[in-house]
Amino acid sequence: MEAVLTHLPWVPVSLGGRSLLVKSCFADTTYRILLTDLHCVWEETMSAVAIQSRAQALNKRLQASVGAFFSHLCAMVQPVFSGEKPDSESRISLIQHQDDKVTVKLRSELAGLPFYWEFYCSPAPISSVCAELVRPLLTMSRLLQQHVEQLRGLLVRKDAEIQDYKENGASLSRERLRTDVFDEQTNTEDFMAKVLPVLCTEQQNALGFDGILQHLYAAIMTEGSSRKRKLSEERCDEVPANEKTNSTLAADSGPESVCRESEDKKPNDNHQCDDAHKIDDKTAPQQARPLKSECVERQSSKPKKKKVGLFR
Amino acid sequence: MEAVLTHLPWVPVSLGGRSLLVKSCFADTTYRILLTDLHCVWEETMSAVAIQSRAQALNKRLQASVGAFFSHLCAMVQPVFSGEKPDSESRISLIQHQDDKVTVKLRSELAGLPFYWEFYCSPAPISSVCAELVRPLLTMSRLLQQHVEQLRGLLVRKDAEIQDYKENGASLSRERLRTDVFDEQTNTEDFMAKVLPVLCTEQQNALGFDGILQHLYAAIMTEGSSRKRKLSEERCDEVPANEKTNSTLAADSGPESVCRESEDKKPNDNHQCDDAHKIDDKTAPQQARPLKSECVERQSSKPKKKKVGLFR
Repeated sequence: MEAVLTHLPWVPVSLGGRSLLVKSCFADTTYRILLTDLHCVWEETMSAVAIQSRAQALNKRLQASVGAFFSHLCAMVQPVFSGEKPDSESRISLIQHQDDKVTVKLRSELAGLPFYWEFYCSPAPISSVCAELVRPLLTMSRLLQQHVEQLRGLLVRKDAEIQDYKENGASLSRERLRTDVFDEQTNTEDFMAKVLPVLCTEQQNALGFDGILQHLYAAIMTEGSSRKRKLSEERCDEVPANEKTNSTLAADSGPESVCRESEDKKPNDNHQCDDAHKIDDKTAPQQARPLKSECVERQSSKPKKKKVGLFR
Repeated sequence: MEAVLTHLPWVPVSLGGRSLLVKSCFADTTYRILLTDLHCVWEETMSAVAIQSRAQALNKRLQASVGAFFSHLCAMVQPVFSGEKPDSESRISLIQHQDDKVTVKLRSELAGLPFYWEFYCSPAPISSVCAELVRPLLTMSRLLQQHVEQLRGLLVRKDAEIQDYKENGASLSRERLRTDVFDEQTNTEDFMAKVLPVLCTEQQNALGFDGILQHLYAAIMTEGSSRKRKLSEERCDEVPANEKTNSTLAADSGPESVCRESEDKKPNDNHQCDDAHKIDDKTAPQQARPLKSECVERQSSKPKKKKVGLFR
């Protein structure tokens, strides 16, 4: 799950009025989420047993298998963690505690009854902060810096071509098309003077992690793990078959194929009993047991179909 | 000290054979250092009293004031934390402990006797990791991404100019000067395919934090705190004079002026006593009490004069 999560880009979300970046992976009736406001990074990893226990504690009037609870949880949080506007019936609040932990509380409806979930997130270890933010962000900066240099080189070549035309007596039919000769230093100074103050001033919606950077992040993470896989294949000839399959999946396929959202989910049937609502997970097996690689994920460059579920 | 340290760029160093990035500020017989291998971030902040006590414990045969110890410590670590190759007499080792702490041990010579120092660094709080790495790196990425976009725009304009010359019958005298029409998508795909694997493959000397990124980092941090200062000035008309002076110093002057290295340091005189070496700090007051803003710092774009001191 950690490896799958690593490939996902951070997605800007608004939880209880606060701008955050989130990474989340829901699979095999377990989940792992990472949240950051760029001042702290929080995480929660939950096993099937823990999910069952918390779901039951928060929803005493509902009786259901962990699979059914998990399905409903996914349906409730997928839109939220994908950066979509939560539907009007969902209520989300975020509480930051004195000990630096945060609780994200969600309230939605299930068969006419309220359905609650709470994420109890603790500060992540520095190793996770480095792996999920520091190293990829530094690589992004290096990559972009090299791209700036490459484009500067192209501009110098364009100027050489233009200069040659001019020297051969060419003239412009439209004066407005004339460009200044590109000067690296002047360009950089002007750019910094103009853009840096704006960047440091503007309200950072999405905390600055926009679609382009998300895409770049995912590409870097995929390349990085693809390289790790190649290295590990070079080192050992024999790798257990199942391990190899997982690692290949994580490495070769981009985040889009690693983590698919089920677009065709159907709500479960709900059977009411004497003093508790029973939720049957047999009627919707795909939903109750999502694919191993099924994750809450959004690629901003690709519009997603509107999901249909109990909570929408 | 925290504010001063924030402005400094991370400097690539090699400690005991390991590549690290370091930020350090030595001032007023106190210091604060930050270290990272991009997998963890460590810190140590030491008061004058703590420095005196540790210096005495590690160097039982030397007797000196904290000012004298501090001067010698600065002279010993400044070259190391500036990314310079340590002189042949200095020995540096780095020990990573089971509890994630690291100890950096330095051994040098003082008046013919060994002089020892040890930094005991603990994992930094996430808030420091975010302030010193995550937020500035994200801003760097955003800034560079916008620069890439600006340069793409310039290339498109160059192509329009070239196209106009061509349409007016201009021809090139040297065919090798002809450039392809710039296509954003092709350019980005080619660049990513070529550069990303190399970036993820290459031995990351300097952990990728080269001179250009250091410069960018410093510019972002200076702009950020300059903005904070303006905001705080707008909010309150009256600020205590000394507070205002400090904040203005940190905000307005770049890292080069905030943290100056004393280039003209003189070694202290050393007086031997019966069973201990006494170090006199009265003979070199500038060295014993460095300026408040005097820090161990290196701007890779500006070569520094070779420092002269007891340990070189």
